[in-house]
Amino acid sequence: MKKSLGPQTMVYPLPVWCVGTYDKAGKPNLATVAWAGICCSKPPCVAVSLREATYTYGNILERGAYTVNVPSAAYAAEADYFGIASGRDVDKFQESGLTPVPSGLVDAPYVGEFPLVLECKLLQHNQIGLHTQFIGEIMDVKAEDAVLGQDGKPDIKRIDPIIYATKVQQYYRTGDLIGKAFAMGRKR
Amino acid sequence: MKKSLGPQTMVYPLPVWCVGTYDKAGKPNLATVAWAGICCSKPPCVAVSLREATYTYGNILERGAYTVNVPSAAYAAEADYFGIASGRDVDKFQESGLTPVPSGLVDAPYVGEFPLVLECKLLQHNQIGLHTQFIGEIMDVKAEDAVLGQDGKPDIKRIDPIIYATKVQQYYRTGDLIGKAFAMGRKR
Repeated sequence: MKKSLGPQTMVYPLPVWCVGTYDKAGKPNLATVAWAGICCSKPPCVAVSLREATYTYGNILERGAYTVNVPSAAYAAEADYFGIASGRDVDKFQESGLTPVPSGLVDAPYVGEFPLVLECKLLQHNQIGLHTQFIGEIMDVKAEDAVLGQDGKPDIKRIDPIIYATKVQQYYRTGDLIGKAFAMGRKR
Repeated sequence: MKKSLGPQTMVYPLPVWCVGTYDKAGKPNLATVAWAGICCSKPPCVAVSLREATYTYGNILERGAYTVNVPSAAYAAEADYFGIASGRDVDKFQESGLTPVPSGLVDAPYVGEFPLVLECKLLQHNQIGLHTQFIGEIMDVKAEDAVLGQDGKPDIKRIDPIIYATKVQQYYRTGDLIGKAFAMGRKR
């Protein structure tokens, strides 16, 4: 039996990604988002939504670029911090001890310690309501050698990304393998 | 050491959601998407991206509505099937044995058996490239009683949603709790 819970942003799973930008003065910043996802294959694009009140909002418009940094579970406290503090008040890279690496492709920094990063050029932005969606073209994906499998593709268990459970506000790890996509549904 | 993997839609975690629509004739359909995410808090909105070639693309434009249905891991084979077959050729509800329940709020069906469903009214659509992003306002969230915790909020472990690992094309379950959001980053 289904129960109506009302109009809410309540769906699972959601990602935990840290958006890297430079401000006007060149200070690197990070903001954690869960309102985000891939939105196009060609060109490869990722969308992240931000409120106008955030520091990152202005930075993206100023620089026309951002990075999407995937924290492993080992960096959950840092990722959580990047979603609490504002770049207006603090230097989050400095506070966390993480390394801002200048992207050679776009005008934004990525996190040296995180296992997987996307360097994005702003293609569009679209105000929906409280949030504005920034659509960035993925110019490159960089991954730590250690998270690549023998086939050269990222192994999600080695990346160990964080899953956000909204409403209860909890972080989870990736669990057991269920099966192969574009395969387990074929025998019907 | 980071290795450049080129411009790709390669990021983790991604969701596995089934988009429910009616076609012109009123036949209910389902299509599985991973290019999707929450994109606004007020109004509450979810974005799903589809290629123009898909049956669901035309259905959403025709009806101005869709549902987002979250399959539990137990329905991974069905979800995979909904991403392989086309509603042009088959009745996916009938083939899978799942129940199309007419939404009382929007002109789209939801999956009776899935633990959590979102009923969405199309707000905007935006062609990015190969994919068009459909932004839907969430008019209601409905959840099975059995997946709600004592606090009345959904328990992600009971929903047991599927995580998509792109490139390696694998499905995973939600794993262990890491910690509390907006809390574990405070002690800095």
